[in-house]
This record gives sequence, C-alpha cells and structure tokens, in this order.
Amino acid sequence: MSIDFKSRAVAGVRGLQPYQPGKPIDEVARELGLDPSQIIKLASNENPLGPSSKALEAARKALDEMCLYPDGNGFNLKQKLAARLSVSPAQLTLGNGSNDVLDLVIRAFADAGDEVIFSQYAFAVYPISTMAVGATGVSVPAKEWGHDLDAMAAAINDRTRIVFVANPNNPTGTAVGRDAIVQFLRKVPEHVVVVLDEAYCEYFEGDEFPDGIDLLPDFPNLVVARTFSKAWGLAALRVGYAVSSAAIADVLNRVRQPFNVDTIALAAATAVLDDEDYLQRSREVNRSGLRQLAAGFEALGLEYIPSSGNFIAVDVGERADQVFQGLLQRGVIVRPIGGYGMPRHLRISVGLEAENARCLDALKEVLESLNG
Amino acid sequence: MSIDFKSRAVAGVRGLQPYQPGKPIDEVARELGLDPSQIIKLASNENPLGPSSKALEAARKALDEMCLYPDGNGFNLKQKLAARLSVSPAQLTLGNGSNDVLDLVIRAFADAGDEVIFSQYAFAVYPISTMAVGATGVSVPAKEWGHDLDAMAAAINDRTRIVFVANPNNPTGTAVGRDAIVQFLRKVPEHVVVVLDEAYCEYFEGDEFPDGIDLLPDFPNLVVARTFSKAWGLAALRVGYAVSSAAIADVLNRVRQPFNVDTIALAAATAVLDDEDYLQRSREVNRSGLRQLAAGFEALGLEYIPSSGNFIAVDVGERADQVFQGLLQRGVIVRPIGGYGMPRHLRISVGLEAENARCLDALKEVLESLNG
Repeated sequence: MSIDFKSRAVAGVRGLQPYQPGKPIDEVARELGLDPSQIIKLASNENPLGPSSKALEAARKALDEMCLYPDGNGFNLKQKLAARLSVSPAQLTLGNGSNDVLDLVIRAFADAGDEVIFSQYAFAVYPISTMAVGATGVSVPAKEWGHDLDAMAAAINDRTRIVFVANPNNPTGTAVGRDAIVQFLRKVPEHVVVVLDEAYCEYFEGDEFPDGIDLLPDFPNLVVARTFSKAWGLAALRVGYAVSSAAIADVLNRVRQPFNVDTIALAAATAVLDDEDYLQRSREVNRSGLRQLAAGFEALGLEYIPSSGNFIAVDVGERADQVFQGLLQRGVIVRPIGGYGMPRHLRISVGLEAENARCLDALKEVLESLNG
Repeated sequence: MSIDFKSRAVAGVRGLQPYQPGKPIDEVARELGLDPSQIIKLASNENPLGPSSKALEAARKALDEMCLYPDGNGFNLKQKLAARLSVSPAQLTLGNGSNDVLDLVIRAFADAGDEVIFSQYAFAVYPISTMAVGATGVSVPAKEWGHDLDAMAAAINDRTRIVFVANPNNPTGTAVGRDAIVQFLRKVPEHVVVVLDEAYCEYFEGDEFPDGIDLLPDFPNLVVARTFSKAWGLAALRVGYAVSSAAIADVLNRVRQPFNVDTIALAAATAVLDDEDYLQRSREVNRSGLRQLAAGFEALGLEYIPSSGNFIAVDVGERADQVFQGLLQRGVIVRPIGGYGMPRHLRISVGLEAENARCLDALKEVLESLNG
C-alpha cells in the first residue's frame, strides 16, 4: 500500500519543482514571532498604493452575486478591454492571472518533443509550465541580464513551437525597444507562437516602448500577455489576459477552464479600467521609488540592474541568503533569486517612500553586521 | 499570413469543444430584451439562498488586501478544512473550483496513449480535460442513468490511469452507496487513481452516503474532490479542493498554478465553514425543493430521474430544445443536456419555493402551447 505516486505522474510532472512565491506576511510573522503589522513585504512586485477605490466599490457590489457562477465569457470586461485596446473581443482570452494565460499557451501549442524558447533569467513560470506538458525548455543565455533576441531567433528550429519574450523582464527589469522586437518578430517563422509578456509594461518609461498590441496586425503569431496584478493593483483577485489574433484566442479559449476568472475579479478589473488616476499614481510612485532605491544602493556601494519594472535586482554579494535572512529578522521581506541563477542578487519591489527607506536602512544594518 | 492555428495546436486541443455553461442572466436579458430582474436562473446548480453572512463579511474584509498576492499555500483554509475533515493539511490540494482539481489530476497522471474512464452521462469536464492532454477517454455505458461500477471496473486495463466516479452524479442526480463504492475500490489496481467527485455530497440524503474521506486510509489511490460552489454557496469565488494521500497531494500541488485560489475565495471559504446554519438551510431548501419539483413533474405527467443533488433531470420529450426556448422566453433559464447524450431531458436546478413554482408554471404553459 505504498505506491510512489510521483513516479506514476506523467514524465514532465515528475521533475517539477513548485514555483517559490514571495513569503506572505502572515507566514513570516508566524515563523519569526513578529507582529504582522510591523512587517513590510517588498517581495512580490505588488502595488504599494492599496486598492483603487473604483475597483473596491465594484468588488464589494459583486459580492452580492457570491452564489452564482461567474460569466464564463467575461462579457463586460472583454467589451471594455476591447474598446480600450482597439481590438475585437474575439481577440481576448481572460486568465486567472497572466500566469494562467502563459500556461494556456503552452498547453495549447506545446507537447512532448516540442521546444519552447525563453531567456536565461526569465520568469520561472515559462520553464515550469513547459516541463509540465513534457515539452523541452530551451534557455538562451542572456546578454547583460537581458534578452539576447538575436540568439533567441537563432535558437528556433523545426521543433520550436513557442518563444517567450518578457518585456520588461522579471526578475531583472531589463527591457527591449520597439525596433528590436520588430526585427526579432520578422525572423520568427509565422507558425511559431511568440508570447510577448508585458506584465510590467505600464511601468515602462520613455517613447521606445514596443506596445505589442500595435504589432498584432502585422504578426498573427503574436500573443501579448498582460495582467491586472501590478500597475492596476488587483494581485489578490487573479486576472490577466492575452491579446492575439482571433484564431489563436479561439484555441486558448478552448483550453481554459470555463470559469477561470471569478465574479469579483471580473467586476474589479472592469471598474479599475475607469480609474486612470490610479494608474497614473501607480506609475509616479514607482518612478520615484525606483530612483530612491537606486540612490540608496549607490550610497551603499551596491551594483543593481537598471529596471523598467516595479522592482530592482540588486547585487548584495556572495552572502545574499544571509542578507535576505537579516532583512526578514528586521521585518522586511524581499525576494532571493538564486532559483533564477542569480545567487548574488535580491529582487526588491518598489514600495511607498517610507517602505523603501525602511528597506534601505535595514539593508545598511544587515550589511554592516555581516561585514563587522 | 493566414496560418491555421487550430491545426497547429496539440492533438488533443484540436478536437476540443468548449464546455457550455448555463446561460448567465445578463446574457439572456441582452439577447431577448428582457428585464434581468425578472429572469430566474435554474441552470447551473447554484445555491438559491444567497450568500452566507459569514462568508460575505470575511470577503468584504479581505478586499482590503486587493493589491497583495494570495497566500499560495492557503494556510488558513487548509488548517480549518484539515481539522473539520480529520486529515492532515498535507493531504489537501486547493483548486480554482473543483474543476481545477479535476483538471490537475488529469494533467498530473494522464498523457497521450493513457486511458481515463468515466461513466456515460457524467460531468463534461472529465472528457474535456482528458482530451486536452491527449489521453483517451473511455465512456462506460450507464445503468439506469447511473454509474455501472462493475462495468467500469471491468474497463480498467494496462493503459488506465484514472477513473472518475461522480457521486452524486451531475447531470443525472444518481448516486451509489458506500458498499458499492468499497467493492469497486477493491477491484481497482492500486496504481490507478480513482477520483470520487463529491461536488454534491452535502445534498445526499440517508445513511448510506459513502463519505470518500473515510475511505482514504484504506485506499491510497483515492482522490476525493469537493467544492464550495454548491451547498456552501460560493460559486462566484471559485474554490474547491481535493483530499487524498499526502503523496498524491504533493504531485497535484506541483502542477497547480501557485496562486490558483484568490484571496477573497480563501477568506470566504474559511469563514463559511463556521456557518453550519447556512449549510443546514441549504440542505432543507433543497430537500423541499426537490419534492416540489418532483410533484410538479408528476402533475404534468413528466418522467424525471430521482436526484441526490440540487437539480433534477426531467424528460420533456423530443422537443426539449423548444421547451428550453419557451422557458427562456418566459424568463426561466434551465439547462439543455443534449450535449450529455440526453436530448429529451432538461436539467432544472432547485431554486427557492417561488422560483420552483414559477418554473413549473412556465413549463406547464410551454408544454400546453407546444401540444396545442
């Protein structure tokens, strides 16, 4: 009666390592005996502003419908997104967070023996979901922590089904400009699906941002993935979406679970799209926070990777795990990214000014205690 | 530039037909130009009571955390469920509805070339998710609308990886007793995973209900799937769970998306477990509603399948689609189940007394107009 069910799992699943999320505040409080209200979490690239009042109001109202199944077609949200993005509702696929969307693309188009390309240091969900379906992940070495698009194009072969390009990339914060993306897309055979993961696109600064949705008419093999979890502040509710050709959206919608996005998430996401002021404040707080953290790292003599996201990867040296633990002890949760092959870096999400200051103070203390 | 992306999808996905959910009230109102407040929906086996006040309060409070990712481990909900069910938290896998749990089992244990067994007239998600991973679904003919467990056991061969037993079954409402389940489980080889889908178990009446969780110590290959969508009234929020051996739970937790259950759902489900009164009222309303509908069908001379769920499948004759449309025109949404191979039946969910009465009145009108 002691069957090894792991060995009975399908090949890809046997090797799966679960995704390691940022530690929740409650968990740290339980483990270290700290007061949860004294802990700050800069570990999961969350929006530090707190909820949009419009999202909150719509979500509260939607709770009255708690007993009814969600609208499996997400009619209202799709209508609003389609108008905002100047696409047809038939080009949209809603997901339980953009994680779900990324997973759907892999389940739809990659199978055992197929290859899926992504960059070194790119989002952990790409290799995890690839492995789960038994396909082979191909990690292309990064260039200065960012995507080497020429090398990624060169890695495409007959077995390639999907290429993931994260722009900006998590956890490095690197980004590529419009011209580079277009040049890359021109090199990709039209039957290979390219996923442009724009989870952090709202934070991109400057004119050069290659809005993937503008490129859809020219590249029917393109899927643009976006999320409400970051700049829109709805991480708790799990809602993301893909924009693609209607043909690809039809395939993705067949694979997704019929009620993958819940009623509260649909209502909040639909409402928050009217809260342009919230989006602008998200961007402003992030812009000044990135400057604050960068200046702090420089004052501490730490190298960091300039970021286009809402986080910075900072090189804290060989004892990054001790630095992480020291910050935890001081009630500051950040993210170790050794699992991404970046054992010297910690990824620190941008918080409010006081949170960033507290993180920098704690970091200074920890580094001094380790060096003393 | 007109690639056929459907033909580029993996083999199983190419043949997928999306699940057809019950029509949402808003959609019917839009399509037929009706006032949404005048429409009743008895199409999705939803709880007619409206939200539990405890769930509602917890959900409202949880909205304050809208910007933060959910606890990916569902610590609080797992603690409470484990205590209630007398299992270890390590035996639990949380899902985005029990649909997610069913899908996880298939993704974890079935691959191309493998077989998955279920009964004729069983829940549509079993064949859909089976096909999506490229495995072969084996539908075993039903006996008097219910599972023929002897035939299902006999259908197991070297390629069989999973057997689904829905108890009570949707959409027929049939159920099997404890002895039959135990006899069946004894025939199943221990490396074949048996999923006992107990989404409707809270509605089962009588002493004979085979609580699958009691059977877990004897059958380490058993997975019991349950949901908060029915008797607990949280369909909008999407939360279900599997109870199994810790070994199977470990595999399922590797496959699931890290934040598959959202913060509001976790909070509401944790709170509703304290609302025993709500559960009792759910059962009572269902019990009397089943009697009311059955008596109404008898008065109309219609045959129905006696149900252990919160719905009844009633035989309305060859023109079931016209009956469905006639009910829709009268603002009553029920579910045609021709897709389940039951073209003469409509599945009617149990509503409040007045809703059931309105449904029966409308049904009488429609049948008279068709027969007139």
